[in-house]
Amino acid sequence: MVDSRFFPTLGPFTLGEIAARAQLTLPDGAPGERKFRDIAPLESASAEDVSVFSDARLAASFAASHAGVIVTSAKLAGLPHNGGHILVARDPRFAFAAIGLLFHPRSLDKPGLHATAEIDPSATLGVGCQVDSGAVIGPEARIGDGCHISSHAVIGAGVVLGAGCCVGANVVISHALIGAGVRIGSGTVIGGEGFGVVLGPTGLMCSAQIGRVLIGDAVRIGGNCTIDRGALADTVIGQGTMIDNLVQIGHNVCIGSNCIFAGQAGVAGSVTIGDNVMVGGQVAISDHLTVGTNARIAGKAGVMRDVAAGEAVAGYPAVPVRQWHRQNVFLGRSVQKTTPGT
Amino acid sequence: MVDSRFFPTLGPFTLGEIAARAQLTLPDGAPGERKFRDIAPLESASAEDVSVFSDARLAASFAASHAGVIVTSAKLAGLPHNGGHILVARDPRFAFAAIGLLFHPRSLDKPGLHATAEIDPSATLGVGCQVDSGAVIGPEARIGDGCHISSHAVIGAGVVLGAGCCVGANVVISHALIGAGVRIGSGTVIGGEGFGVVLGPTGLMCSAQIGRVLIGDAVRIGGNCTIDRGALADTVIGQGTMIDNLVQIGHNVCIGSNCIFAGQAGVAGSVTIGDNVMVGGQVAISDHLTVGTNARIAGKAGVMRDVAAGEAVAGYPAVPVRQWHRQNVFLGRSVQKTTPGT
Amino acid sequence: MVDSRFFPTLGPFTLGEIAARAQLTLPDGAPGERKFRDIAPLESASAEDVSVFSDARLAASFAASHAGVIVTSAKLAGLPHNGGHILVARDPRFAFAAIGLLFHPRSLDKPGLHATAEIDPSATLGVGCQVDSGAVIGPEARIGDGCHISSHAVIGAGVVLGAGCCVGANVVISHALIGAGVRIGSGTVIGGEGFGVVLGPTGLMCSAQIGRVLIGDAVRIGGNCTIDRGALADTVIGQGTMIDNLVQIGHNVCIGSNCIFAGQAGVAGSVTIGDNVMVGGQVAISDHLTVGTNARIAGKAGVMRDVAAGEAVAGYPAVPVRQWHRQNVFLGRSVQKTTPGT
Repeated sequence: MVDSRFFPTLGPFTLGEIAARAQLTLPDGAPGERKFRDIAPLESASAEDVSVFSDARLAASFAASHAGVIVTSAKLAGLPHNGGHILVARDPRFAFAAIGLLFHPRSLDKPGLHATAEIDPSATLGVGCQVDSGAVIGPEARIGDGCHISSHAVIGAGVVLGAGCCVGANVVISHALIGAGVRIGSGTVIGGEGFGVVLGPTGLMCSAQIGRVLIGDAVRIGGNCTIDRGALADTVIGQGTMIDNLVQIGHNVCIGSNCIFAGQAGVAGSVTIGDNVMVGGQVAISDHLTVGTNARIAGKAGVMRDVAAGEAVAGYPAVPVRQWHRQNVFLGRSVQKTTPGT
Repeated sequence: MVDSRFFPTLGPFTLGEIAARAQLTLPDGAPGERKFRDIAPLESASAEDVSVFSDARLAASFAASHAGVIVTSAKLAGLPHNGGHILVARDPRFAFAAIGLLFHPRSLDKPGLHATAEIDPSATLGVGCQVDSGAVIGPEARIGDGCHISSHAVIGAGVVLGAGCCVGANVVISHALIGAGVRIGSGTVIGGEGFGVVLGPTGLMCSAQIGRVLIGDAVRIGGNCTIDRGALADTVIGQGTMIDNLVQIGHNVCIGSNCIFAGQAGVAGSVTIGDNVMVGGQVAISDHLTVGTNARIAGKAGVMRDVAAGEAVAGYPAVPVRQWHRQNVFLGRSVQKTTPGT
Repeated sequence: MVDSRFFPTLGPFTLGEIAARAQLTLPDGAPGERKFRDIAPLESASAEDVSVFSDARLAASFAASHAGVIVTSAKLAGLPHNGGHILVARDPRFAFAAIGLLFHPRSLDKPGLHATAEIDPSATLGVGCQVDSGAVIGPEARIGDGCHISSHAVIGAGVVLGAGCCVGANVVISHALIGAGVRIGSGTVIGGEGFGVVLGPTGLMCSAQIGRVLIGDAVRIGGNCTIDRGALADTVIGQGTMIDNLVQIGHNVCIGSNCIFAGQAGVAGSVTIGDNVMVGGQVAISDHLTVGTNARIAGKAGVMRDVAAGEAVAGYPAVPVRQWHRQNVFLGRSVQKTTPGT
């Protein structure tokens, strides 16, 4: 049961509406007009709920579930279950995500500008924005239609946000041009000064950092991340890329579209990353490297050389993932053989 | 000497009061009415200070210390020292911590609600709270007695805080039910959207995250952490668990009581962790794993399989800690043997 | 081309002024009175721009660049190029950084105290400060001349900042004495309670943390860092040390001068670090260790023993960097030999 203090629930929706939202076909004879109330996990779903079964290890839960509707794959649909309506999806998790957003859309709480927001007279806001208490919008900033700027967020001079962006509380954005539908978690800092330390005869100096941050449409950034602006060029994040919490993106990094960065990953300066790259949690990528399209970097890997398109790497230093597994097996066997008594 | 600009000091307290606070027995003939002024390290303590000696490597400091009172163990008490009064404790560090809080309790600065705090009329606050400038408390939030909400903290709609909580500056809390006596460091984000990325035919999508964060009594969370709310279920942190700075807790993670997480540790989604687990700094725990009660995970380990109750692991990938040490010895010897000239 | 929405540009400056700023000698016959407009990368620089060539791998860009002035080394100056004026520097990157700051100095936007800043009557501010909206300056704090305190930054009671400090938005500083010319990135927390967890018969307890943070002149700290105050002694950061984003510095850590910490590095409690130490990204240093002057710790290393002065280490656990490379070669060869078919 969703906690209604936190999550207003739309609906109920008919089975037909639910299937349509996920572009699924209703099975013959299914009651397209019957209404369902919410989404829920297999274990706690009632006959009025929609659930999902996408992992064969949960077959027992599927078999016992009281869910009224279960989204699953053609293959898993053949397993024993409890009589709920089955919706078959090529990609059940994706279909269920779409259904979840039908019941629980991301929406503005209270459009309007809070009296304590500090909006510079030269800034422009689109229609239907929500700007919460204490938010700051600097000179010449341009905020698109339907944006939500949460409490105490600070949008610097000249920053551009496309329509439908959601900026969390205490976010700081400067020196950035941001597309439409971008969501930024609380506490994240975008456009901070890159780490351009140079060593000279009189000690360390930080060079001027006069590039920007360019963020494409539909990018999602988590909480307490840091995304530095470029030094001379720009830092770029391609459209649809998804970034988890506490991720560091260095200056001049150029990231393609539809990449995934898990929590606490870090990308050093001037790295170039292609499209559809998956980066695991706590991965580090050294500066000036290139990571090709569709590459996969396993969690906690330390990448110290280029990664080819489609390559999967793991380890520290990162090597092809199969090599890493073999190395680990080799190490484990070696110490069993060599030091039996310890 | 404590800097009085930052730390008001209570006292002085008598030796009897000091021993009582730490549940220690006064030795025969000790001057229970004599007063002492503060705590201090062995090296700088004066005859009016209380100090602690818990590490045999500091025996020289113990021998030379001018501290008026020294808390130590029965074993260490036999080493040479300079004549201060000795209080023997089964656990000297724990006893000294209790004595430190006698002189330096955590207390409210100025109870009351600052004029610039934005407290929704439907929120309820207990008695004796301190709400600092610019803090935001949302609709229907319930704040217990004696809570301290620091400047610019943002407490979202419906959030519940038990009595005696301390929320740092610029903290963001949403979608959370929090127990009594919880302390949260500045800049931490609790209840942000979990990282539920699913891949489908039209690209990446983030599923609705409609769970909560449930935090038990007496939990301590450091600064700039991120603790995501659950996807369908809840993210749970058991009572008395202690979390350092910059720690990431993913959605649906379930953590037991009295665990310790050192700085920059990260727990991926849907991990289950038992009671009394110790997690070192920069540890990563992969998603959907189980870590048993009393397990110990060494600093920087990358946990990629379940950890049994009581097991101690280290390395990346994490293996039993003795195996890891043997692997490291093996590797060091191997390169000495195989590449003598390099 | 610098984006003028974000970066006002001073100048133009004559070649003579440019050379003088970087303490470079004008070549014979160079047009010292000719003016230049900005800095730019080799690839996009025009005849009115100054650029830099410091990496032989970019020789093709040097050969083709239209830059009016190029700063380079004596060695690289001999490579083919396109006719721009050459300024030879012993350290081209350092010289170019100085020139960049000539065109793009870090300066205050709008000196003055914003009406919504909350400055305690007992705090003192030097001349020419800028305090932005919602910033909080606590009782008895002392802020030097020409400081910039950005929006929603919270400067706690008694904190001292030297002249010319720049404090980012949403920064939290408490229990700290900070030198002149210190720059602190947005979202950073300085002076939070150290992680002093002690285990006793009744569970975990956090000891009082009654030390301070002492930061030397010209230190640079990135965004969303956490620097804890000391437990009984102080946490110390020496002058000129440069710290990137998301770095954790534990309680009682003592860091020398002119050190470099890359992003997401973490230093556990009571570590002592000498001068000129370089710490790579995501490095972890275990508690109570000593790292000598001029040591170098490679990215992602896990340091679990003392590091000698001048030593270079890498790996987890960290070993001498040459040993680490040999270990990695050994591992790679071992699995090729032992498991050819997999």
